[in-house]
Formats: sequence, C-alpha cells, structure tokens
Amino acid sequence: MEYLTAMSACEAAAAIRAKEISSLELVDACLRRIEDREPSINAWTFLDADRARAAARACDDAPASGPLHGVPVGIKDVIDTVDMPTSYGSVIHAGHRPPRDAACVTLIQRAGGIVLGKTVTTEFAMYRPSKTANPHHIAHTPGGSSSGSAAAVADRHVPIALGTQTSGSLIRPAAYCGVIGYKPSFGTFAIEGLKTLAASLDTLGMVSRSLDDVLLMFGVLTGTQATAMAKPGCDAKKLKLGLWQPPFASAPAPDADGLHLATLRLAGAGIELAPVSMPASFSSLNDVHASLMAYEVARNHLYEYEPSRRTSMSPLTTAVIEQGWKVSFDSYVGYREATRNARIAFEQVMLDFDAILVPAAPGEAPGIASTGDPIFNRMWSLLGVPALTLPVAKGPTGLPLGVQLIGRYDHDLHLLDVARAVEPLIGG
Amino acid sequence: MEYLTAMSACEAAAAIRAKEISSLELVDACLRRIEDREPSINAWTFLDADRARAAARACDDAPASGPLHGVPVGIKDVIDTVDMPTSYGSVIHAGHRPPRDAACVTLIQRAGGIVLGKTVTTEFAMYRPSKTANPHHIAHTPGGSSSGSAAAVADRHVPIALGTQTSGSLIRPAAYCGVIGYKPSFGTFAIEGLKTLAASLDTLGMVSRSLDDVLLMFGVLTGTQATAMAKPGCDAKKLKLGLWQPPFASAPAPDADGLHLATLRLAGAGIELAPVSMPASFSSLNDVHASLMAYEVARNHLYEYEPSRRTSMSPLTTAVIEQGWKVSFDSYVGYREATRNARIAFEQVMLDFDAILVPAAPGEAPGIASTGDPIFNRMWSLLGVPALTLPVAKGPTGLPLGVQLIGRYDHDLHLLDVARAVEPLIGG
Repeated sequence: MEYLTAMSACEAAAAIRAKEISSLELVDACLRRIEDREPSINAWTFLDADRARAAARACDDAPASGPLHGVPVGIKDVIDTVDMPTSYGSVIHAGHRPPRDAACVTLIQRAGGIVLGKTVTTEFAMYRPSKTANPHHIAHTPGGSSSGSAAAVADRHVPIALGTQTSGSLIRPAAYCGVIGYKPSFGTFAIEGLKTLAASLDTLGMVSRSLDDVLLMFGVLTGTQATAMAKPGCDAKKLKLGLWQPPFASAPAPDADGLHLATLRLAGAGIELAPVSMPASFSSLNDVHASLMAYEVARNHLYEYEPSRRTSMSPLTTAVIEQGWKVSFDSYVGYREATRNARIAFEQVMLDFDAILVPAAPGEAPGIASTGDPIFNRMWSLLGVPALTLPVAKGPTGLPLGVQLIGRYDHDLHLLDVARAVEPLIGG
Repeated sequence: MEYLTAMSACEAAAAIRAKEISSLELVDACLRRIEDREPSINAWTFLDADRARAAARACDDAPASGPLHGVPVGIKDVIDTVDMPTSYGSVIHAGHRPPRDAACVTLIQRAGGIVLGKTVTTEFAMYRPSKTANPHHIAHTPGGSSSGSAAAVADRHVPIALGTQTSGSLIRPAAYCGVIGYKPSFGTFAIEGLKTLAASLDTLGMVSRSLDDVLLMFGVLTGTQATAMAKPGCDAKKLKLGLWQPPFASAPAPDADGLHLATLRLAGAGIELAPVSMPASFSSLNDVHASLMAYEVARNHLYEYEPSRRTSMSPLTTAVIEQGWKVSFDSYVGYREATRNARIAFEQVMLDFDAILVPAAPGEAPGIASTGDPIFNRMWSLLGVPALTLPVAKGPTGLPLGVQLIGRYDHDLHLLDVARAVEPLIGG
C-alpha cells in the first residue's frame, strides 16, 4: 500500500478518476498508515475512520464531482468543522462543535475532497508546543502552529492538509518537516470559520508534498479557474531571483543552512542570485509584527482570558495576551502605519525580482521544548506577501532544511510558477 | 421619564455614577419607551426585559465598574451574543445561539454596559429591506443594514447601538434617521464574533446621538485609553475642510441636500470649504467595491447558498452571491490592486485636509420598498477611511438629512475632533 500513501493529491485524484484505484483503497491506506505511525507522531486531534470510509465509498459510487474527488485532506484544528470537534488546541474549547463548516471546508467537500480528520494545532495557533513529533526524529519539534498538518503530510498520512499562518505557522513547520508549505498573499482565501488570532495577519494556506497539489488546492480554495492562469515551464535561467540574508540573525552553520545549500545548487545549475537591497527600516518589522499581533490577540481572546478560564491557558499564550494589553492605541496605529509603508516599499523592491530566496527557519528543527523561532517568518506575514518553502536537504542531525521563496503581493500564481522552475534544481 | 431616554450614554453614565439616577430607572424608561414605540418601529429582533432589569439591579448594587456602568446598549444582530439568539437577519439562522459573545460585546460588558437586546439587521447585512420603520415617518425606510440600531437610537430606545458597515450600512441609516453614524478606519475595532460578509471591508462601528458617546465607545471598543488622545475644542475656522460632490451622481434638490445645507451654514459661520480634486480613477471605485464585495460574499455564504437553504434567502441576496461567483480570480486580484492604489492616492489627497465633506445619502429616506442607495458610501468603505455622518436638517418630507465627514486613514480621533468643532455650526 506504500504507493498509495506516497501519491500526491493530483496523482490520487487522477487515479481515482481513471478508476485505477478507488477512494476507499486510498483512504484505507492512509488510515492504516496513521494507525501504524500515530502513536509516535501524534499529528491528529480527531479522526473518524468509519465516517471517512463511508465518504470514500460514496465517492466511489458517484461520478467524479470535482478536482479532489475521493482524496483525503487534513484540516488544522483552528478551522471549524460541523461534524468533528474543533478545539483550537485548547482544553477551554475541548469537544466544541461549531455550528457550521468553515468556508474552506465546504469548498474542499464541494470539490470532492474527504475531510479525514483534524490535525493538531498549538494552543490557539501560538507558541505552546503541541503533542506532535517531527516524523524525521521524534525527539524534535515539527514546528508550529500547523504542527499536525506538517507532520501528517511529511509522514504520508494524507497528501495535503490545510494550515494557517499569522507569524510563521506554515513555513516553519513545513521546513522542519521537509515538505512544501505555502502561505498565500494576505486575503487570498476566505478565512470565514477560522478562529481569529490577529485579523490583520491571519492567512489560510496549506502543506503538501507537491507543487501541483498547491496549485490544485489554490483553485479549490478560491472556487475559481485561477489555476488556468498559471504558466508552468518557465525557464529558471531567465528568472530574476534575489537573495536576502536577514541582517538581524546570524546564518546557521553551512551544513544546516537551507538557504546556503539552495544557493550552491542553483549556482551549480548556472543560476546566480542577485543580492537584494532592503530598506533599513525593515530591521524593525519583526518587532512591529510581534506588537501588532499581540494587540489584536489580546482583543480576540477575551473569552479565553476571563479569570475562570485563563488558568487553562499556557503561560506562553497568556504572555502574548498580556503583552497586547500593554500596547497603547497610539502605538498600534503607529505599527499599522509602519506596515502600510513597508508594504509600499517592498512592492518597489520586488519590481526587480520574480522571487527572492530567504531563510525559512533557523536551521534544523530544535527539540520538543519549543516550536522553533518564527524570526524568519514574521516580517513576511506582516508584509502580507506570498511565501513558499521548498525542502532542500537534510542537516547534520538528519532533519530537513528548507528555503523560503517570497513573491510579489497578489502575484501568487507567478510565485508558484517560479517554485516549479526552481524546485528540480534545489530539490532535497 | 422623557429626560431619561433623551440622555446620552455619557450623561447617563455620569448620572448613574453620581447616584442621581439608577441604572434600573434608565433601563425601565428605555423598556417602556420601546413598549410604546416598537409596534410601529420594529427596531428589535430580541429583547429580554427581565434580564435587562436584573443586570441593571446588579449594576446598582455594585460600585461603578467602567465608563458604561449601567448604560443600556443595542447590538446589531450580525454580532454574536451567547445568551441571546443571533440570526443575522435570516430565517436560515432563526434562533441560532452562538457559542461565545463577540469581542465587542464582551468589551461593552466589561465596561459595565448592559446589552438591552439585538437590533434588526437586513438579511446578512445586505440589501433586503427589514421590518424596521423610520421613526420620523414609518412609511419610509430607516436605511440598511444597521436598520434597527439607527431607528432605536433615533427613537430613544437606547442612547447608543453597535452596527457594521461593508458598503453603506452605518452612514446611510444614521443619516436617514437623523442621528450620528460612525464607521471607523478599517480594522480599528476587533470584529471577532461578527458574521463575515466581506472580510476586506467589514467594519464595526456605531450609531449614537452624541459625539461624546462616539468617543466613549471608541475607548470601550479598543479597550484602551485612546480617548485621552482626543483634543476637543479645535477651532473650526482653523481647520482645512474640503468639499467633494461626487461626479457620478447628481445632487438632490437643494432643500433635500444635506451637503448643500451644511455648506451654507458653514459659510454663514465664515467657513469656506475648499474644493477637493480627486483622481479621475476614483469614478470607478463604486464598481470596484461592488465586485470585490460580491466575490467575497459568495465565498462567505456557501452554507446559506446550499440548495436546501438558498430558497430561504431573498433574491437581492442571492443576486449578490451569484454576481460574486461570476467574478474571475484575475478580476478579483485586479480589484484588490485598484483598491491599494486608490488608498495610496487618497492618502495624498488628504494631506491637504483635516476632513472633507461629502454626501451621506441621496436626499431623504425613500419608501420602505428599499433601504436606499449606498452610492455615496461604497468608495469610502473600499478606501477604508473613517466616515462619520452628522444630522443637518429636515428635508421637504420632514425626514432627516445628514452630511458625511471623511478623514484620513487611521486618524479617527482627529476626525472626531473635527466633527465636534463642526457639529454646532451645522447641527440640525
């Protein structure tokens, strides 16, 4: 059954459509893989094998209804599902049943996809480590907050899973787990039915093992023929690619540096990256992000921070809320202005590039005591630009290293084209 | 009891704090006013007199806990309340009980405010007329979608009520009902717990009869000491005020033209308005707004548009959803780009002005067959800038006329200062 769980969503959908495999076989293979691996990986917070099999049978009995017909998908547990508990990574909401599915869940089901279950999120998609382990080494974090989605896809429990990013919650775990993570431009996919963390930043995205799957899910989640606009097959040598090593963090050792290794491989393929000159003011964007996010997090977690409930939250989460209440309105307005100005400035920077390569995460995944540092993710979330991580290699500990590609705001399909051109050259 | 229902929220809070009146007296007066008037006005979709009285008694028995201590507030029924049904103006959600209060409801309660009940919204805060009548003439619309909030405040059921605006849902009904409507800069107040209409545009705001109350509620809804930053008492003669008559609509007859009448009164006080030169591209912003909103509305109402439910929606609502599904992703991205560019261009325009005066609505409120035209509101919602309407006069039919003040993005407190300087000169 190994070939079934190794399939991409596109491959599986095509095979089901051609009746080479059944949805039930695929779902069964995924469930058996999970049964085998879940005791050590803990990627899921809710699974209902019987219902998933019933949905698969229904797909097998019906004509193919959409691009995901019969394909299982994982849904991060900050996303509402009407028929599965949705607890946002918190005991405060244990067993909570939302009144409706989130828009993205309905779009996936309308495309024929099968919601296999809910994947683990850190507490309210913030920094408290979850129970999930990194499939490459279970003593290491899978990253957060889309911990379960990244681990489940990396460990072949499902071909694709939804996640969210407010600071670094898609790119970091995907890089740590050696899979593709994609955070689109802010506002690309409807976030209706997602637990609000910080409305200025919250972005729905995905984790997969195939860029074709990212494109497939892009069409599903926009509910459009957007993917028809993609222009695959662009020539990597003709692309204007930039390189930016953020000055606010030292690079890891060369053999643990995904950006460095990607750059070497591209150079080996005859592709030089142009250095990117960023505005000096960008050095403060991570701090702007943290304060702006905390201000909004505080207001969006009034319910959870009520005295009777706050003791059920981790100190990492209450610290963000308390930081947020200390941000004055004046400061918040200032952070919003800094963000607008930075977005305009970055738009100018990107006129010279098809994409720029930056670090995805600080080296390999650390131990399970933290979810790692979003230091290389915050500013891109603040800028709202599309970000995508590709696996590059394994580091000295045998854990994956990724590289992050940043595109121009709302030029997501071009960034996906660039990623497809670059991936075979840097691929890990 | 007339003096009680005529009080502003600030006056009522001060009188309660000074023990000149009790919260119970105030709430009782409001409930009796509603009992008297509601059969013809229909501003409320849910009221629980016993619970409101119990909350008032609890306030009276406790030390003053916050700036709204003991003051009743109306909450538009697109805003979640855990202990009152929240049906978003639709039979599809009749009797729905959300799992938690919206952030704004919790902030009001923490400030000591009493949620008196839920005010009528049009269906999903869009265009289908609600049951609510204009208190100035019940054969006329109160406007929409914050119909109940505008009518309830105008008719002295409550001193202040929350509303929302995505196209013109605060400014238009407030102008039609002769009260103050305030739509802050996009993103100013947390919208957690509000039914999503179009996430790029949805804005929480309020209706009141006093600018002091707007400032009071601004502090409550940000959860900050923001109002300490307001600088009341600025000299209207020293302000740079602009005048813009949108070229895309003809002005109403002079005696039905709130902008014209406000301009005359300001001229009488020695204040001339400078003509505002807008970019030519702004003539398309209303269309950009309508298409961008429809695209998002379609994705946020998948649940309601399921075949089994859509027959319970009005044709006005399904038409927006169907329009939204016809917008291509390419077009949507284009509308987003046009919006970003217009926001940057308008920021330049506003460097020359403290505020600009524009129409709030096309003349007096029309009959109850529609909620009126948001033609003078859409572009400001798209630009995300703060907008405030002040009552000016009554028109030929005896219905109120307002004028709209537009401020610079995120300079909301300055716009409130400007409004306080201008109000006594134009006040109707």
